[in-house]
Amino acid sequence: MKTYRSLAGTIIALTFADALWPMHAKADEGMWLFNDPPRQQLKQKYGFEITDQWLEHVQKSSVRFNSGGSGSFVSPDGLVMSNHHVGADCLQKLGDQDHNYYRDGFYARTRDAETRCHDLELNVLMSIEDVTDRVNAAVKPDLSAEQAFLARRAVMAAIEKESFDKTGLRSDVVTLYQGGKYHLYRYKKYTDVRVVFAPEQQIAFFGGDPDNFEYPRFDLDVCFFRAYENGRPAKIEHYLNWSSAGVADHELVFVSGHPGRTSRLLTMAELEYTRDRQLPFRMRQLNRLEMLSTAYSARDDENARRAKEDLFSVQNSRKAFIGGLAGLLDPALMGKKKSQEEALRRAVVGDPKLKETPAAWEKIAQAQKVIGDNALDYNLLAAGAGFNSHLFGIARTLLRAGDEFPKPNGERLREFVESSRESLEFQLFSEEPIYDDFEIMKLANSLTFLIELKGYDSSLVQNILAGKSPDQRATELVQGTKVKDVELRRKLYKEGKSAVEAAKDPMIELARLIDPDARSVRKVVETQSEIKQQAHAQIGKARFVIQGTSTYPDATFTLRLAYGQVRGYEENAKPVPFQTTFAGLYERSAEQRFRPPFDLPESWVRHKSDLNLSTPFNLVNTADIIGGNSGSPVINKEAAMVGLIFDGNIQSLVLDYVYTDEVARAVAVHSSSIPEALRKVYDAAELARELTGMH
Amino acid sequence: MKTYRSLAGTIIALTFADALWPMHAKADEGMWLFNDPPRQQLKQKYGFEITDQWLEHVQKSSVRFNSGGSGSFVSPDGLVMSNHHVGADCLQKLGDQDHNYYRDGFYARTRDAETRCHDLELNVLMSIEDVTDRVNAAVKPDLSAEQAFLARRAVMAAIEKESFDKTGLRSDVVTLYQGGKYHLYRYKKYTDVRVVFAPEQQIAFFGGDPDNFEYPRFDLDVCFFRAYENGRPAKIEHYLNWSSAGVADHELVFVSGHPGRTSRLLTMAELEYTRDRQLPFRMRQLNRLEMLSTAYSARDDENARRAKEDLFSVQNSRKAFIGGLAGLLDPALMGKKKSQEEALRRAVVGDPKLKETPAAWEKIAQAQKVIGDNALDYNLLAAGAGFNSHLFGIARTLLRAGDEFPKPNGERLREFVESSRESLEFQLFSEEPIYDDFEIMKLANSLTFLIELKGYDSSLVQNILAGKSPDQRATELVQGTKVKDVELRRKLYKEGKSAVEAAKDPMIELARLIDPDARSVRKVVETQSEIKQQAHAQIGKARFVIQGTSTYPDATFTLRLAYGQVRGYEENAKPVPFQTTFAGLYERSAEQRFRPPFDLPESWVRHKSDLNLSTPFNLVNTADIIGGNSGSPVINKEAAMVGLIFDGNIQSLVLDYVYTDEVARAVAVHSSSIPEALRKVYDAAELARELTGMH
Repeated sequence: MKTYRSLAGTIIALTFADALWPMHAKADEGMWLFNDPPRQQLKQKYGFEITDQWLEHVQKSSVRFNSGGSGSFVSPDGLVMSNHHVGADCLQKLGDQDHNYYRDGFYARTRDAETRCHDLELNVLMSIEDVTDRVNAAVKPDLSAEQAFLARRAVMAAIEKESFDKTGLRSDVVTLYQGGKYHLYRYKKYTDVRVVFAPEQQIAFFGGDPDNFEYPRFDLDVCFFRAYENGRPAKIEHYLNWSSAGVADHELVFVSGHPGRTSRLLTMAELEYTRDRQLPFRMRQLNRLEMLSTAYSARDDENARRAKEDLFSVQNSRKAFIGGLAGLLDPALMGKKKSQEEALRRAVVGDPKLKETPAAWEKIAQAQKVIGDNALDYNLLAAGAGFNSHLFGIARTLLRAGDEFPKPNGERLREFVESSRESLEFQLFSEEPIYDDFEIMKLANSLTFLIELKGYDSSLVQNILAGKSPDQRATELVQGTKVKDVELRRKLYKEGKSAVEAAKDPMIELARLIDPDARSVRKVVETQSEIKQQAHAQIGKARFVIQGTSTYPDATFTLRLAYGQVRGYEENAKPVPFQTTFAGLYERSAEQRFRPPFDLPESWVRHKSDLNLSTPFNLVNTADIIGGNSGSPVINKEAAMVGLIFDGNIQSLVLDYVYTDEVARAVAVHSSSIPEALRKVYDAAELARELTGMH
Repeated sequence: MKTYRSLAGTIIALTFADALWPMHAKADEGMWLFNDPPRQQLKQKYGFEITDQWLEHVQKSSVRFNSGGSGSFVSPDGLVMSNHHVGADCLQKLGDQDHNYYRDGFYARTRDAETRCHDLELNVLMSIEDVTDRVNAAVKPDLSAEQAFLARRAVMAAIEKESFDKTGLRSDVVTLYQGGKYHLYRYKKYTDVRVVFAPEQQIAFFGGDPDNFEYPRFDLDVCFFRAYENGRPAKIEHYLNWSSAGVADHELVFVSGHPGRTSRLLTMAELEYTRDRQLPFRMRQLNRLEMLSTAYSARDDENARRAKEDLFSVQNSRKAFIGGLAGLLDPALMGKKKSQEEALRRAVVGDPKLKETPAAWEKIAQAQKVIGDNALDYNLLAAGAGFNSHLFGIARTLLRAGDEFPKPNGERLREFVESSRESLEFQLFSEEPIYDDFEIMKLANSLTFLIELKGYDSSLVQNILAGKSPDQRATELVQGTKVKDVELRRKLYKEGKSAVEAAKDPMIELARLIDPDARSVRKVVETQSEIKQQAHAQIGKARFVIQGTSTYPDATFTLRLAYGQVRGYEENAKPVPFQTTFAGLYERSAEQRFRPPFDLPESWVRHKSDLNLSTPFNLVNTADIIGGNSGSPVINKEAAMVGLIFDGNIQSLVLDYVYTDEVARAVAVHSSSIPEALRKVYDAAELARELTGMH
């Protein structure tokens, strides 16, 4: 499953500066900017001329799920299609002891029954503006790294605020090519988003963890929402038509979505850091969380419901990290990366235009070392790995809101700038349920992890524990805090710093206790990242000079266009076909003797004879995608929907570091299967009609 | 589940010298030596006079399972009763793709059908002899720690060999009171052990991981074997009678079994080390193994079968470690330990008989620090955490057998002394199945763990990987080695060093590559352990002088007698009754909606109406037990069987460090439930008759 999860973002990547810009793109490589699409490549390889009209239509039909995925408009009445596992966050939060929509599915047969998600925000990209010159002009060359970081943060906040004040649109300055360019992205925002339809998780995630990141697959990983404005379905100009023809082998297709993060142009020093420190740390953290959440879930059904979405997310990340680490531990892959870096370093030596470049690699290595020295505190305190609790996150946001909002906009921590305020409040005041027992379990576990890493006798740990064991401390914090109450949150947020202080809330006081250390280590890492960013800009410039200009930046969870062919591959000397069918689903289930997670929902057992079993179900293509592309539409040359991205195969897990189309494939739900299932299994003909325009 | 698992022993505890001797025993505390039983306590508290005849009968009825548990003879024809989860190792190894005895159970309706375990060795303690003086005489006071360790090892090997040559019995010198005493234990050995009956794992482990270490419980955790001699059922003089009367609330009971290890008298320095280093390391290692084994098992039924016993063992250890660590992170428990240590340290100061004692604590702290500095290499290389592969273990044993056996008996590594040779060969030549895919998964994972801890660029890691990724290297090692072939093992073992060298087997060569480092770090740790052992002997002597003599040593996986009362307790202000019934089993299953692991085997569904539902099923008592006691008989004053230990409740997990009878309880299968189930559910009336003597 390829979501760019909030969890995957809990620990902000220590390599902020992932890469500058990639090698000259070959094959079907690339996550392209909509304002710099691969016109020439498409023309040369596929004879397809991309038009501005086509681009605008696809761009404005594409939707970003701020919970960590992609989607698209599929009707003029605001209907949005994405993956079940992207909708999971909303479905999970709408459930309670008596309703498990995530597991059992949901269908609103009337508009009245469409149910609003607690805190789902959708973004639609309306325009892109290049603001590189203005950003760079504000960062004078004689500034220290620390000053440069602050100056850059201030000018970005100013640009965003101006844009927001002028247009009312969400405005984000996006750092591309690792500081090579800065683009202002303006989004139309939808915060009244209602769930329309979700199938049972058993069919959306048929095969579960064992089949995750595998192919052939048989998953109906689809979910429908509707965007509302002013209490009514939004009227949408740009939405994708449905292809009734489906898709042919070797056909050219496009994927429009929001890949989360790639690391293709890290230097060797950064890749080695990722291999030796970052991934092992994340896996160590996730392993214990997976193990505890699994044990918690096994106790009873209600526990399982409460933990389900978190657990899925952890398991999903685990597979992705194992795959990524295996890539970095493969001497062939790393050898190739090393040769490329050495070639570039040789090429820049002696070029008078690039006289500052040779030192850039060493600067990055030095900065990475300092980041590494601070990584433990950064992860535990700043990124919060020591305090895995939703309530802690709320408490810290309240504390910092009190401290940050009185400051001038340009001097605030990045997440408190004026232009993000609406989105921040939308999250902070969410009515999503929070479960004490699950919170206590996660907090006690992360406190124990903190003790393990910082040492029981350290004064930090002793201050945090306050004479209690981790279990006792987590229990008193979770049971004692009042920030569960959304009205209290609103009050403290509105009244600010003095009210937050006066509340004497134990969880807020914990956040206060560690805040000086958390802020100080964050500053160190941000300053070093600025140094890396400047050095990456120099390397990028060199690459630009030596390798040419037509290329794409590393992924940044912003809209990108990828392209490729529908195409099977070979595995263990056997051909893997480009698509599967419903018949294959029933065969796979029988072959596994119907045991979970290969059991079928009752609805699919009952309606087997109603279905056309030769309907194509899942398909693969060579488009360049990564986590965050989940829910992206797969479209044909006419921009009609032929599939819905939901995963990559196991061989695609190295795409974080390098593109390959030999066996790596994007996995999608075939468009034909969706209306067929809606009509025959779910008695949802009206939804199928809205989607396809056909009765 | 309270087995003393071979897995739990994979990493030899870094604190070899666990403790000297415990505080004066109160309440029902104590794991007593059979040659020094708690006569006075039993008389005072319960008015029970223990006789030598009673002791001999119970001792010789007790059986040690060398796979890591306890049991007892229950018929004159060699019938042995233990837990299903103690028998699991044998049941697992007898299974194949078409037979899953561990999951589905086993019943030999005739003697012919009783099936021999691949490598199960049973030991029955025949005699105990105090050899303290001879051991101490061999270790002159002027020897360095390194010399002292070697001298002690040599004299122990000599005593064992003499005893074995004279009696033909397995002879082990056991270090008790952490070096305060040395006793020679002589065992009768049974290596032809056949499985007679096992129920389905679903009823043996009803409630699975969620209910493990919990109470109330409803588990038929029983398994029957038969010891054979010369191809015929062994004729047994001492075996336990069955109590038809069952057991009453508050009745005095005894537990005779083999507690694996306790750490009750570690010094604070050692306890802190356990808390800060040892348990976190073990949990980190286990978490990743649990996660990978779970994912491997989920893929299909055959994978699940292959991994089942390993996975159970990992999950069991995980709960035990979490419970133990939570105890050490509880300031109340550690505060109590600290006060006790401080009180003793104050008391010894100025006592002319104890003038060497005050320095002992500091000596232990220093030695512990050196052990800590070497712990990483010790765990990875000597204990083998970097090479989690059964084939690697075999390869290393072959390599070292070639190196060690030519040496004089007293100079060999401890596991190669002459008196253990038969047991070593019995294990080494086991025909148990080994699965390449499971081996590759475990070895690749542990190599990745080794890389993570030692650093990818270290020369050790680079030499081990030989230019491959961990996956590639694990695959070529497992597929390339010939030591899977038992005949080849016999040949190399017999022909010795030169043949082992000539074989050029890749797995043996890997073992050879790391052997110098592995041996050298082992020597460091053994020497420091000798220093700790001598210091512990001094502290023990002081405790003896100050606190009196009637006490018991820490557990050492040797036979011990515990006693206590059948007694319920209070949890969350609610009474927990001392026993459960079959009726409760069916209620618990229904309450959990029959979902795994709360589903019942088909046999128990079908025969519900045949059963007397008011039959007592499980019970709790206050006897002092720990992992390794699994399968121990619970007997009454007449030495008749009233129960079968299989677990401790969650509150008992701190018993590793301190005894308490407030809420900590040993959990047992009630003797009444076993014949009832055999007759009504399993149509095994003949076995019930053999057991109870009644038709």
